[in-house]
Amino acid sequence: MSSGNGGTVTEPRAADGDLALVIGQDGKRFILRLAADTELQTHRGVIAHNDLIGAEWGATRHSHLGLPYVLLQPSLDEILLHLKRRSQIIFPKDLGYILLRLAIRPGMRVAEAGTGSGALTVALAWMAGPQGEVHSIDRRTDMQELARANLARLGLQDRVTFHLLDIADGFPIQGLDALFLDLPDPHNYLLQARQALHGGGVLGAILPTANQVSSLVEGLDQQGFSQIDVCEILQRFYKTIPARLRPVDRMVAHTGYLVFARALAPMLGPAPQTGARESDLDLDATQPIGEEEQG
Amino acid sequence: MSSGNGGTVTEPRAADGDLALVIGQDGKRFILRLAADTELQTHRGVIAHNDLIGAEWGATRHSHLGLPYVLLQPSLDEILLHLKRRSQIIFPKDLGYILLRLAIRPGMRVAEAGTGSGALTVALAWMAGPQGEVHSIDRRTDMQELARANLARLGLQDRVTFHLLDIADGFPIQGLDALFLDLPDPHNYLLQARQALHGGGVLGAILPTANQVSSLVEGLDQQGFSQIDVCEILQRFYKTIPARLRPVDRMVAHTGYLVFARALAPMLGPAPQTGARESDLDLDATQPIGEEEQG
Amino acid sequence: MSSGNGGTVTEPRAADGDLALVIGQDGKRFILRLAADTELQTHRGVIAHNDLIGAEWGATRHSHLGLPYVLLQPSLDEILLHLKRRSQIIFPKDLGYILLRLAIRPGMRVAEAGTGSGALTVALAWMAGPQGEVHSIDRRTDMQELARANLARLGLQDRVTFHLLDIADGFPIQGLDALFLDLPDPHNYLLQARQALHGGGVLGAILPTANQVSSLVEGLDQQGFSQIDVCEILQRFYKTIPARLRPVDRMVAHTGYLVFARALAPMLGPAPQTGARESDLDLDATQPIGEEEQG
Amino acid sequence: MSSGNGGTVTEPRAADGDLALVIGQDGKRFILRLAADTELQTHRGVIAHNDLIGAEWGATRHSHLGLPYVLLQPSLDEILLHLKRRSQIIFPKDLGYILLRLAIRPGMRVAEAGTGSGALTVALAWMAGPQGEVHSIDRRTDMQELARANLARLGLQDRVTFHLLDIADGFPIQGLDALFLDLPDPHNYLLQARQALHGGGVLGAILPTANQVSSLVEGLDQQGFSQIDVCEILQRFYKTIPARLRPVDRMVAHTGYLVFARALAPMLGPAPQTGARESDLDLDATQPIGEEEQG
Repeated sequence: MSSGNGGTVTEPRAADGDLALVIGQDGKRFILRLAADTELQTHRGVIAHNDLIGAEWGATRHSHLGLPYVLLQPSLDEILLHLKRRSQIIFPKDLGYILLRLAIRPGMRVAEAGTGSGALTVALAWMAGPQGEVHSIDRRTDMQELARANLARLGLQDRVTFHLLDIADGFPIQGLDALFLDLPDPHNYLLQARQALHGGGVLGAILPTANQVSSLVEGLDQQGFSQIDVCEILQRFYKTIPARLRPVDRMVAHTGYLVFARALAPMLGPAPQTGARESDLDLDATQPIGEEEQG
Repeated sequence: MSSGNGGTVTEPRAADGDLALVIGQDGKRFILRLAADTELQTHRGVIAHNDLIGAEWGATRHSHLGLPYVLLQPSLDEILLHLKRRSQIIFPKDLGYILLRLAIRPGMRVAEAGTGSGALTVALAWMAGPQGEVHSIDRRTDMQELARANLARLGLQDRVTFHLLDIADGFPIQGLDALFLDLPDPHNYLLQARQALHGGGVLGAILPTANQVSSLVEGLDQQGFSQIDVCEILQRFYKTIPARLRPVDRMVAHTGYLVFARALAPMLGPAPQTGARESDLDLDATQPIGEEEQG
Repeated sequence: MSSGNGGTVTEPRAADGDLALVIGQDGKRFILRLAADTELQTHRGVIAHNDLIGAEWGATRHSHLGLPYVLLQPSLDEILLHLKRRSQIIFPKDLGYILLRLAIRPGMRVAEAGTGSGALTVALAWMAGPQGEVHSIDRRTDMQELARANLARLGLQDRVTFHLLDIADGFPIQGLDALFLDLPDPHNYLLQARQALHGGGVLGAILPTANQVSSLVEGLDQQGFSQIDVCEILQRFYKTIPARLRPVDRMVAHTGYLVFARALAPMLGPAPQTGARESDLDLDATQPIGEEEQG
Repeated sequence: MSSGNGGTVTEPRAADGDLALVIGQDGKRFILRLAADTELQTHRGVIAHNDLIGAEWGATRHSHLGLPYVLLQPSLDEILLHLKRRSQIIFPKDLGYILLRLAIRPGMRVAEAGTGSGALTVALAWMAGPQGEVHSIDRRTDMQELARANLARLGLQDRVTFHLLDIADGFPIQGLDALFLDLPDPHNYLLQARQALHGGGVLGAILPTANQVSSLVEGLDQQGFSQIDVCEILQRFYKTIPARLRPVDRMVAHTGYLVFARALAPMLGPAPQTGARESDLDLDATQPIGEEEQG
């Protein structure tokens, strides 16, 4: 991104071809790719891309009606909230935690079943980096086309391999570090999921209803998964008036239940119970867990 | 990590020197680095590392008393919960969202002020990857030594530069993409923070009390930051008995308020107000924001 | 209300003059007082009150367009949600807990400062019963007129005494069992509040911002109040489809912080600290507290 | 309770036979009935009841070791948290809302099935007053004896009629205004419940698991109940240090799901659907519902 270390640092500037976020006084946001000699039309006037190209990030520019706009590089959560979509996307509050639980890291090998509108696809491609291997599987062409378009707009299309098929017939890849199921009935594909993950690999899912969670947990218990965890994440924003600090009036009450589990290695005989699962350990889950004991 | 694509995939196996997570029937977790000819002492018997080395990840092994243990690669959240610590660490529920909001990605340039026990340091090093540039600044030697030890245990020490200094005197780096302040009084260092970030860079902070949030928001308003956002994240785990699905009895009620803002480019005259901030838009913040891209 | 005990019970029926709740197929609710020879106009047709008078509660009647409506006695929370209002009312989720903490019971002596639209006034009159003594104090005539009208519509007007005055000059009553302050600056009236309560009386307040809570708690500490408690109550509704049980999409994120305290008897010298307050005892507050009763 | 109106008010004083709450500096609470010539033994010394009898409520008294104790009348929520118990009690956060939704008021006629340890029994007796009619039904003698003892300690025993029987055989009373089911399988007794309630009467239940909620909602749909509502209530306490306002560290994550419904009058043909139920109207449920009253 930038390079300075002390001394003189050149402020990074918006360049032709960069992805940009432009925000007006009314909070209205535009995400666009800068292209010389084109214009951004807003309800409050026209902004020439040429006025933005070459400007410092964080600079203020004005529309032809004289109204100010701030120029920023979009962060990942802003990009995701702006994606063209045809289905419910995974919210930032859930996505950050999913990426952490799937242990996403540069160079990893990960797949999602259920491409959806590509929000998770984008996040995986972003986080896994150029050396990463991201697979996205769906049986609907239209969804994959949308996700492909969303990736292309962000310049991330080369990091993702799309597979058009029904996972009931098995996954096209194996030895995965992590697999995320964004499907209404993940409990029907656990045998296939187990075969696609390497031993110890992480399975994740998001489900809107409690009934689906019961079905999935039951299936995970039976199909050689361990360390099953179910949780939900609530996010509450605050009004940002320092002398009158208070939460906003309304919030999202529910997006989905998050489920995580680890694949056990195939074995003869019954899988061992690893005792209380993490989600039963409500207090321990939030405390340092006993640490390295060594002989 | 692994490489197969279709055909025959060799299951990845635990090797001498790997970081491993070993979980007993009672849910007791051990994180350790595998070393030939050493032993793991547990309350339920001894496990020879030599029994673990060469095993498939996800495999079950037994202590000398015959009790089963599952062998896994630790995920980032498990590593963080096991860190040796001397101060409160940032919880996974908050950390995932922080990484997303700071737009952490392979190769980025990021700093934290307040090294603490190094949990965020570990997460930043993990996510920024080998090409990333992570700086951690603290004025206490003991905290940095602990963080350094935690990084070394994970093999991530080469990705982080430690700076022992007081940020009241200014940051030792400039042009940062993102900066996280894990300090009790971040509002006292906003001028320095602004100079360390490049235009449009992301500032983040976590604060335990509402009074601190008021002080920080007031300072951000005055020091050329925009897009100020305050939120809190709550996580509720569920018991995983399919026929009796219900939340666990207790949960963490509070870790800290999260605050995010974007640095504006220096300008003459007053900074423009960008209207309602995201956190005021409680409904919009959760919906796709209308997008207008124009040629 | 009703009287049967076993044997033949006559189902209670809607009578001329009764308060009724009428609900359409579209969920639209009407609260009205039944009056012979009048009509209820809905968007889906006209219902003659004469069709409702004499019907069993819980019965279905039809508009002149043939659309069905269910006839019910309104419960207290439904009445409160329907009150004519000119200011924010206290929500049912908060109100139930407030009534419990103020220990409202038949025959008790209670006051509120800040009449508002009369929602709490109605609830206090309802719960304190015909023998209760409810005082409502405000310095604005218009608010008291609205509250008076709301009470009259419910037939509760005789249970409440209104006082038109500024509590900065002191309360017009003394020896109160409980006092609720629904004002923006309750910390300015704590001396007056202390004089209006009998020793050990309960003070309650609701406040939208964290800053106001800090001011109030500080004042309570200084003005001879003890057992200070601050909390907030969140309520999440569920969709009621048995095979797809899940929370609704959105919820109220904030109404107000609730503050409670007990008045100490006037004493010479500093008030004793009663150690950890209840709200600090997050675990104990939810468990049976050890009891030692001794002869 | 007290009587002054203006002029000279005599502060109410603790009398022989009164229920009292005594709180030490360490926050330790004792609920006891005052009895002349007896003593309260604490870990920090002995307090003679004779020192408390005649004292103003809110006064401070000292143990024989010189440590101060505050004398208060216990409020309902404090009484409930101190009840001797053999089963999970209903928490104050839920109880206040339940009382509101059941529209409890002086003189009403209400029953509970599942006496439990008598916490709801106590609350109903307290709120329904001396003219109220409270029935408590259980098939276990031991539970009823405990509840009876808890009521007797509070002097409320005359307000409750206990029934020792199995509600599978039907309820012993009819024409109830409200009925609360505190049982693991309320869906098995809905026909009986419907017969016990008068038309339009309110049914309430509390259930720990999502599976039970699905079963109950399904049964209510089939058995002539309407206006079905499911919700959960979360309460978060705050530390009460004004300069460091923040939530406590831990909170109760779950007690139970609350379910409410209204009994329809028996009718020929299928019951009308009243469209969206209240719990589906997440936004409307929190706003004044449009009202049309017509003459």
